[in-house]
Amino acid sequence: MADSEAVIELAKRRGFFVPTGEVYGGVSGFYTFGPRGEPLKTNLEATWRDRFVVAEGHMTVDAPTVLPEPVFEASGHLDGFADTLIECPECGRSHRADHLIEDHTDREDAESLPIERMEGIVAELELACPTCGTGLADQAIEPFNLMFETQIGPGSSDPGYLRPETAQGIFVEFPQLAEYARGQLPFGVAQIGRAYRNEISPRRSLIRVREFTQAELELFVHPSGDGPDLDAVADVTAPFYSAEAQAAVEDGDRSAEGAVRELTIAEAHAEGIVADPWIAYYLGVAAEWYRSIGVDMDRFRFRQHRAGERAHYASDCWDAESEIDGNWIELGGFADRGSYDLDKHEAHSGEAFTVFEAYDEPREIERATVDPDMSVLGPEFGGSAAAIADALEARAADDPAAFEAVDPGEAITVTVEDEAFDVPIEATGFARETVTESGEHVHPQVIEPSLGIDRALYTVIDHSLTEDEIDGEERTVLELPARVAPTTVAVFPLMDADGLDDRARAIVEDLRAAGLAVAYDDSGAIGRRYRRQDEIGTPYCVTVDYETSEDDTVTVRDRSSTDQVRVPIDELDAVLVGLRDGEQSFEEL
Amino acid sequence: MADSEAVIELAKRRGFFVPTGEVYGGVSGFYTFGPRGEPLKTNLEATWRDRFVVAEGHMTVDAPTVLPEPVFEASGHLDGFADTLIECPECGRSHRADHLIEDHTDREDAESLPIERMEGIVAELELACPTCGTGLADQAIEPFNLMFETQIGPGSSDPGYLRPETAQGIFVEFPQLAEYARGQLPFGVAQIGRAYRNEISPRRSLIRVREFTQAELELFVHPSGDGPDLDAVADVTAPFYSAEAQAAVEDGDRSAEGAVRELTIAEAHAEGIVADPWIAYYLGVAAEWYRSIGVDMDRFRFRQHRAGERAHYASDCWDAESEIDGNWIELGGFADRGSYDLDKHEAHSGEAFTVFEAYDEPREIERATVDPDMSVLGPEFGGSAAAIADALEARAADDPAAFEAVDPGEAITVTVEDEAFDVPIEATGFARETVTESGEHVHPQVIEPSLGIDRALYTVIDHSLTEDEIDGEERTVLELPARVAPTTVAVFPLMDADGLDDRARAIVEDLRAAGLAVAYDDSGAIGRRYRRQDEIGTPYCVTVDYETSEDDTVTVRDRSSTDQVRVPIDELDAVLVGLRDGEQSFEEL
Repeated sequence: MADSEAVIELAKRRGFFVPTGEVYGGVSGFYTFGPRGEPLKTNLEATWRDRFVVAEGHMTVDAPTVLPEPVFEASGHLDGFADTLIECPECGRSHRADHLIEDHTDREDAESLPIERMEGIVAELELACPTCGTGLADQAIEPFNLMFETQIGPGSSDPGYLRPETAQGIFVEFPQLAEYARGQLPFGVAQIGRAYRNEISPRRSLIRVREFTQAELELFVHPSGDGPDLDAVADVTAPFYSAEAQAAVEDGDRSAEGAVRELTIAEAHAEGIVADPWIAYYLGVAAEWYRSIGVDMDRFRFRQHRAGERAHYASDCWDAESEIDGNWIELGGFADRGSYDLDKHEAHSGEAFTVFEAYDEPREIERATVDPDMSVLGPEFGGSAAAIADALEARAADDPAAFEAVDPGEAITVTVEDEAFDVPIEATGFARETVTESGEHVHPQVIEPSLGIDRALYTVIDHSLTEDEIDGEERTVLELPARVAPTTVAVFPLMDADGLDDRARAIVEDLRAAGLAVAYDDSGAIGRRYRRQDEIGTPYCVTVDYETSEDDTVTVRDRSSTDQVRVPIDELDAVLVGLRDGEQSFEEL
Repeated sequence: MADSEAVIELAKRRGFFVPTGEVYGGVSGFYTFGPRGEPLKTNLEATWRDRFVVAEGHMTVDAPTVLPEPVFEASGHLDGFADTLIECPECGRSHRADHLIEDHTDREDAESLPIERMEGIVAELELACPTCGTGLADQAIEPFNLMFETQIGPGSSDPGYLRPETAQGIFVEFPQLAEYARGQLPFGVAQIGRAYRNEISPRRSLIRVREFTQAELELFVHPSGDGPDLDAVADVTAPFYSAEAQAAVEDGDRSAEGAVRELTIAEAHAEGIVADPWIAYYLGVAAEWYRSIGVDMDRFRFRQHRAGERAHYASDCWDAESEIDGNWIELGGFADRGSYDLDKHEAHSGEAFTVFEAYDEPREIERATVDPDMSVLGPEFGGSAAAIADALEARAADDPAAFEAVDPGEAITVTVEDEAFDVPIEATGFARETVTESGEHVHPQVIEPSLGIDRALYTVIDHSLTEDEIDGEERTVLELPARVAPTTVAVFPLMDADGLDDRARAIVEDLRAAGLAVAYDDSGAIGRRYRRQDEIGTPYCVTVDYETSEDDTVTVRDRSSTDQVRVPIDELDAVLVGLRDGEQSFEEL
């Protein structure tokens, strides 16, 4: 099994990814995908689009990465998207206060501590600067907003921020998107693109970076509507680690291994482990997708967030996680965001973030109303009269029967700021009236499958990188699925002579014209050329040899089995496209 | 022909693109691509990748959009990437000084004027603020850097900038990329992604925006190597508007129409109009690509930059331009950047930005050297002695024969800062020596085809949007090529009853599983449904009718001709994929 050093060494040597700008000493938290990583990433993104967008018939948007301040005022990121920072008075280095505490205590939840408590712990334990060793006991801990800030246009009147998630670029356009969906729930809107977090201490290669690619899908569903048909993913299996199981492990009631259960989506939903059918459905879609791109499903699980761990807006949340070097990392989240985001944008913008749902035919709606007699309430209750009138209105909407239960001449009691007031029933003007309504304004519930592409890519390399022995010789091989491999086929002339090279180059051109990602290599022994391709995951190698000139065939060699078959040149493009797209297997050739 | 109002109205109403964040009053220069624009943009990007990258076998990278300051110190953007700004003392609005001047004079080149000259013109003509009318005569004009600035990490010690072009993310990794290319010139590295310009006055919809998508290819070629084989694009035709022809039009020697010549790539290169074979080749590739995505080639041209117009680093440059509302806009540029960028990064980083080219066998190289006798030069030339020694060394390398032409006892003349110095030939220590070298370090020349995706998208919509008459009824139709249309096929049940809708939905699922972008519509008369799809460019509509239940066929209707044919359902996915990919035409069905 690969460790992170092997992954990072391969990544740099063969061009999957490198730290950006190393000629200038680099800058922490930024990576450049190279000639192998870029196509791998693009292929992962394409398979995500095929599975989550095209196959499901969802809409897409592509919003700017820079968004103006009002968007993040509304979303809460301007106030709430911060880490805690402690600065060394000696060397000036800043550190994440919660990480510092976690590194020196048993705590795993320091992030959720109030700042005063953190300062107390740093002082109590006499924690010191990890860089220079100076004591930090008296240093203030400050929140540090993780959004990159910039200025739009000249001057400083229009701050803009690099989006911390792609989602807000969808939410902010909801009124328009609902029109494109012709006001029909449910509908989904997906977006793939860059997002940014100005991490205080980026670490662990691609795992915690400052710029990354997110693939998000926002499903706008009717809060009391039907869920999706689970049939299409009912039999998909995955390991599930519920919040309940995590609690049992923590309490010592269960072993960590036994707590993770391999279930089908149908089982997980039927047993109530994944209560929301939309989340269940997309866990199924995601499990299929992760398997298809080369994630080892024995090193994968869905883990439910525990109550304290969820974002304030989320009523349920599952993470997809992969095992890397013995640790579990988050690959993606599946959250029920409720109507939190749409409500916020509605409140801040003054626009309706709703869908109007017309009834099949207009409905007669009975409504309880009040019409408080202020000439009675005013003298009686003085400054509280207006608030009492509001309380009566709310009470009538919630509990009209309470009014009807009061006998004439008696009073109804309402509470305003913990004080009870008795209002004569005649002064409330309570009545029931009938109105005709043609439909209602619905605030959709938002279900969000949100996947990180960089971590998926890192996981795929880590899980695919293996060593085996071929003919007594060790080789390093990257067992990437053909659909995502950066190069689909490498073409070799057996010798760089006798016209074999010209023939090989002509084949390269034909295969490229067929849309295949093709490499050409005429340098060194054939065995060494195979090894080079094995290491970057190229699934097929084609060799042009002396037999080629006789019968117009070439050998096609399969990376995983190292088996070889001869294929006529004029069938080669179709055969390779079929192999890449999974329409045929190498064994069938 | 469409005007920009019609394009912008359609773009918003049907979801191609909208100004971002309109619920908050919007922010100038940012657009969000909607459910029709996003797939159109993605399809354009995919076709660019197929043609410029996969078919040519180039490498790719994907670099961050945020890059650290040293990158832009080296590239020159930190000092030189600025517009001129004049601020109104009354209303505080900032304006581009060059635009202000151009709007009130006949000048078209105000951008290139020195700031003092601009201030002089503003004062002379008593120009006023376009917003509030206040006179600007005494206002200072300041350069305003167009890069968005931000801070990386806490504090202000690590400024970062949103890249103004994707190219620098390639150049800065050149030493590593050259290794991946195994040091073999030529090689190409492509990148597609966001770039940013903090425009003072964004305008004209997608034409001048603050965030956009660039598709750039950097070709690293040997400065004295062979050009590419032009055969593959020799017969591609395009309209060429050379610098010479532009000068002739300006001088009144030629009419504007006659000056633009329709030529094949082979002709344009053979006649010396496009001197560089690499530029000629990629003009051919680009012309093919623009034609394939739906640009009207009668409203397209390649225009050569005139000497004063080229970037300081470019020795030749051609723009691809399209005609929009009677104006020509730049779609992309094809520049010979020389070794400017690599030299700059080499100088700033201290790393070698070269390729080592090994000779077939070691070469004996004769070299002219000097070894100035400072005990003579010092007393003779004082403070100038060191500079004179450098001048001797340079002269020996450039023109060794000059030394050999001087008789013993005579002097050779070298020039330092316009002053001539006579140096006794014996004091120069001139000699010829022979050294053995195994190869040389080559600074590659960079050829850059750089295309803007947003402007291509805008042009494609503008050039594809037409009105025609079908059966006496006017219709709006977007004649997008099938390969790039946001929706490939719309499926309609003739009636939302009798099982036709279930059958249609099953077909939708099958077609989506085959990777097709499919819409479903069961609302309104069939004619109206066709019109909706015509307007967004959907090339094919499938209707499920009562015949379907009898013989398992459906009608497939072609958008452009409105012709219809019946196709068996079990062939439908293959037929539609073939039509989309251009492997078969509708007429052949």
